[in-house]
Amino acid sequence: MSVQGLGDTALFQVCVIVDDVEKYAKKYSEIFGLELPKEYHITAGHDVTNATYHGTPTEAKAKIVSWWLGQVQFELLQPLGGPSEWQDFLDKHGVGVHHIAFRVKGSDEVAASFGSFGVKVTQQGFFTPPTGMYTYLDTEPLLGTTVELLEFFEKEK
Amino acid sequence: MSVQGLGDTALFQVCVIVDDVEKYAKKYSEIFGLELPKEYHITAGHDVTNATYHGTPTEAKAKIVSWWLGQVQFELLQPLGGPSEWQDFLDKHGVGVHHIAFRVKGSDEVAASFGSFGVKVTQQGFFTPPTGMYTYLDTEPLLGTTVELLEFFEKEK
Repeated sequence: MSVQGLGDTALFQVCVIVDDVEKYAKKYSEIFGLELPKEYHITAGHDVTNATYHGTPTEAKAKIVSWWLGQVQFELLQPLGGPSEWQDFLDKHGVGVHHIAFRVKGSDEVAASFGSFGVKVTQQGFFTPPTGMYTYLDTEPLLGTTVELLEFFEKEK
Repeated sequence: MSVQGLGDTALFQVCVIVDDVEKYAKKYSEIFGLELPKEYHITAGHDVTNATYHGTPTEAKAKIVSWWLGQVQFELLQPLGGPSEWQDFLDKHGVGVHHIAFRVKGSDEVAASFGSFGVKVTQQGFFTPPTGMYTYLDTEPLLGTTVELLEFFEKEK
């Protein structure tokens, strides 16, 4: 049985990990004629993000910019310290596409469903204020790239 | 001035280069619950594909499968010999996302427009029968990944 909870399997996001987000963002902006987006900084510690790296609390930090390229969110991410999948990727591969992301509801249930294929969660964290969460899966050996589950919480009415 | 001819900059394709297309395709199929697609083989030589690698004729061959993940074509490509960007990527990075592709009209004009940013064509070829063409650009140092221009020729009426 395939993984449950991936819905229509529409690709939601592609992320390039870089070592200098301003430099790369400027080039994308110039070449594609896109407005330079506002940076989003993950600066909060584990007490706020509840981020884990291989199950252990992490202070992983990052700078991010993104654009919409059609229906796909295209993200550039620069790791800024703290143990993270982002830094691991940069150390192992250099700058390049790190993950493809899918929107889900019930991240932990979807991650558990990936578990039946031997896939584990490598990093997980919450957006602050808690508007959503991300989950990275160690799909690289099976699928050739990391899969991210992205969940945006619905606002309480 | 930004590159001319990229239209709405909608992301059309993401490609993972692999070393065993059947193995990876099977896993994508199982995990995402997707039908196993028919393989597309680039087996023709330069006399048919007119393929070039850094300006020199090449007999580059490959096996390809692809699915639609929402609006995005998601491709797995295994190089099968002949000098190619595909094999270079595999040798340098290992299995991973090789390129993001955009649909264009007038590939050579769009590639020339990239040239104003110092970007060169690395590999180019025609689909057989000549229904379209692909052009890889050496955007990796500037953008962190390879950009491909994909053109599908309109049928003559």
